[in-house]
Amino acid sequence: MDSRTGLPVVGMVGGGQLARMTHQAAIALGQSLRVLATSPDDGAALVAADTVIGQHTDLEALRRFAKGCDVVTFDHEHVPGDHIRALEADGVTIHPSSDALVHAQNKRVMRDRLTAMGVPSPAWAPVTEAADVARFAADHGPTVVVKAATGGYDGRGVWLLSDPAEVAPLLASGVPLIVEEKVRLRRELAAVVARSPWGQVAAYPVVETVQRDGICVEVLAPAPALTADRAVQAQELAIRIATALGVVGVLAVELFETAGGDLLVNELAMRPHNSGHWTIEGARTSQFEQHLRAVLDYPLGATSLTAPAVCMANVLGGAPGGPTIDERLHHLLAADPGIRVHLYGKQPRPGRKLGHVTALGEDMAEVRTRAATAARWLQEGVGP
Amino acid sequence: MDSRTGLPVVGMVGGGQLARMTHQAAIALGQSLRVLATSPDDGAALVAADTVIGQHTDLEALRRFAKGCDVVTFDHEHVPGDHIRALEADGVTIHPSSDALVHAQNKRVMRDRLTAMGVPSPAWAPVTEAADVARFAADHGPTVVVKAATGGYDGRGVWLLSDPAEVAPLLASGVPLIVEEKVRLRRELAAVVARSPWGQVAAYPVVETVQRDGICVEVLAPAPALTADRAVQAQELAIRIATALGVVGVLAVELFETAGGDLLVNELAMRPHNSGHWTIEGARTSQFEQHLRAVLDYPLGATSLTAPAVCMANVLGGAPGGPTIDERLHHLLAADPGIRVHLYGKQPRPGRKLGHVTALGEDMAEVRTRAATAARWLQEGVGP
Repeated sequence: MDSRTGLPVVGMVGGGQLARMTHQAAIALGQSLRVLATSPDDGAALVAADTVIGQHTDLEALRRFAKGCDVVTFDHEHVPGDHIRALEADGVTIHPSSDALVHAQNKRVMRDRLTAMGVPSPAWAPVTEAADVARFAADHGPTVVVKAATGGYDGRGVWLLSDPAEVAPLLASGVPLIVEEKVRLRRELAAVVARSPWGQVAAYPVVETVQRDGICVEVLAPAPALTADRAVQAQELAIRIATALGVVGVLAVELFETAGGDLLVNELAMRPHNSGHWTIEGARTSQFEQHLRAVLDYPLGATSLTAPAVCMANVLGGAPGGPTIDERLHHLLAADPGIRVHLYGKQPRPGRKLGHVTALGEDMAEVRTRAATAARWLQEGVGP
Repeated sequence: MDSRTGLPVVGMVGGGQLARMTHQAAIALGQSLRVLATSPDDGAALVAADTVIGQHTDLEALRRFAKGCDVVTFDHEHVPGDHIRALEADGVTIHPSSDALVHAQNKRVMRDRLTAMGVPSPAWAPVTEAADVARFAADHGPTVVVKAATGGYDGRGVWLLSDPAEVAPLLASGVPLIVEEKVRLRRELAAVVARSPWGQVAAYPVVETVQRDGICVEVLAPAPALTADRAVQAQELAIRIATALGVVGVLAVELFETAGGDLLVNELAMRPHNSGHWTIEGARTSQFEQHLRAVLDYPLGATSLTAPAVCMANVLGGAPGGPTIDERLHHLLAADPGIRVHLYGKQPRPGRKLGHVTALGEDMAEVRTRAATAARWLQEGVGP
């Protein structure tokens, strides 16, 4: 408890944009997010009063950080499981727990567990030698997807192999691998839910996520032309996974909708997720507030849409040069007074997620055009 | 400019809830609000990374604070005009300027100016001796309203006199006074607008404000049963005042709607205002973001409603004792998953504004009940 306010202190390990936006949500709840950042220039460190500088791989830094927190949670999946278990043994309340989080940290553990649960998933196999990939490709190939079991994100750690022999250098690098079938997909969806220690769950409307080069560029809420039955099926799947794995906080379940119309689980994330950024304005309760409410065992908030059509587009770093970000912002705000802008305080680098924009309205085609235009103006600039 | 982000630095003098909520808005724009707070326990100081501790009445503290700010603005009206002029002479960009702000700092200056502009206002007169009040009461009384020309807020500095002789002790205290007619009013309204240095204006829907004991307890957006003509009249009045006075930033014009249906100007505030808190969720652009956009000369944001009916209710400190604020919050969030809560990080004291709640929906009666119930639960607790 913060003795000045009588309200709990949530500590978030990691100082990126998720912590930055969670801090915004914490402010409304009377709190101030405590952030463990690796640098004072991290996006969340730039804005949060209660920032501690330290490495998330340093157990002693984590222990110092956890002191005085009512609950510790995460902005990313990179805290070693042993460290989380050590903190749990110290008596620190951590959500999600090490037992739950491992399913977002290790794709092999996740696939094993979901397979055991009978959750619809792509065909997959563990990889310890090149022959494993060759065998799998014979059944499910020729093209297969090899994934690093740990450490990948935003398309990193994912390789599309048209020839099984290409796995050799990956194996040589020592990264633990799995192989999955290349799913013939219609599109990607995401089901974001939250779960509290008490066991309450809340599910957001299912969204469509549009990827380019393995990075999410657009999220459409609600997913267009998704039948109510299929949407409920996706929500129930996410709730079932959250409950079985004992997730506390936000769980994002990334799904493939196959060409045949089936839903298969692609990835899990146990934190506020890019596929939920639209909820800041597009849902009654944002995923960031929902995550705080969940880890604090507060009752969860309403997840209903605030507009019939919502589109979020990520703003990625463009080519160097051109107008400053401040100039770009001026042009954009003049062009679209209704666009919602979120900048993360990061130095631009090509391909880096610098922010996102959200458009809300009556018609998905219209908000999609607005969001894409806004993202492009911020990424590339406009004018001569 | 913040060299780490390439984005401007706005400094706000005053560390209360307005700065706290402006910081939330600044985060989305890629910024971090710089706050001059009198104590590290001020609501904004608890949450903002870039807080300077100092007195707003100390010119040297203001000068140090202003260094590195692209623009300086205010969370309250209590910075002495001479200090603001000194900063302006130093070359600091300040919005609103001393010339504009004086109309929110001094009711006599405000009444003189609005009278000269022909803006509909209550009958009023300056007061230098008791006879001024007696004379005024003879024409406009018997009951009259005496106001401190400077320093009043939330019902402080306002006295209802049924006998003109009662002004003697007020005069003796040395406070500069004015006297106003007691308007026979139907209700109070507020027109919130923003204006940029370029001269762009943006007007929010006109709201009804419900006062109790001189403190705003509820804001209804849009004002129920206000004709479109009357709403436009109120907006145009506010725009005319903002433009004539050279206001930059948010201007809140508090209005009396008289028993006869006329609109009279009651007060002016040149900053985000309690009558605009509903805009955080209820309008496409919050008044806090709008204030930042205005003082930075960014294009202003859309002011349209996000729901047909929005009600904000203030949470005031109740009687000491009872459940903790954290317990009250649990009960409330369980009872109304759609309620939006904003707590300011303040120690409770009877009558102190500790936060506000906002309900959004289709029907004003319903959202009003929800907001009032939520505020009462937070103020008084529920249960045995």
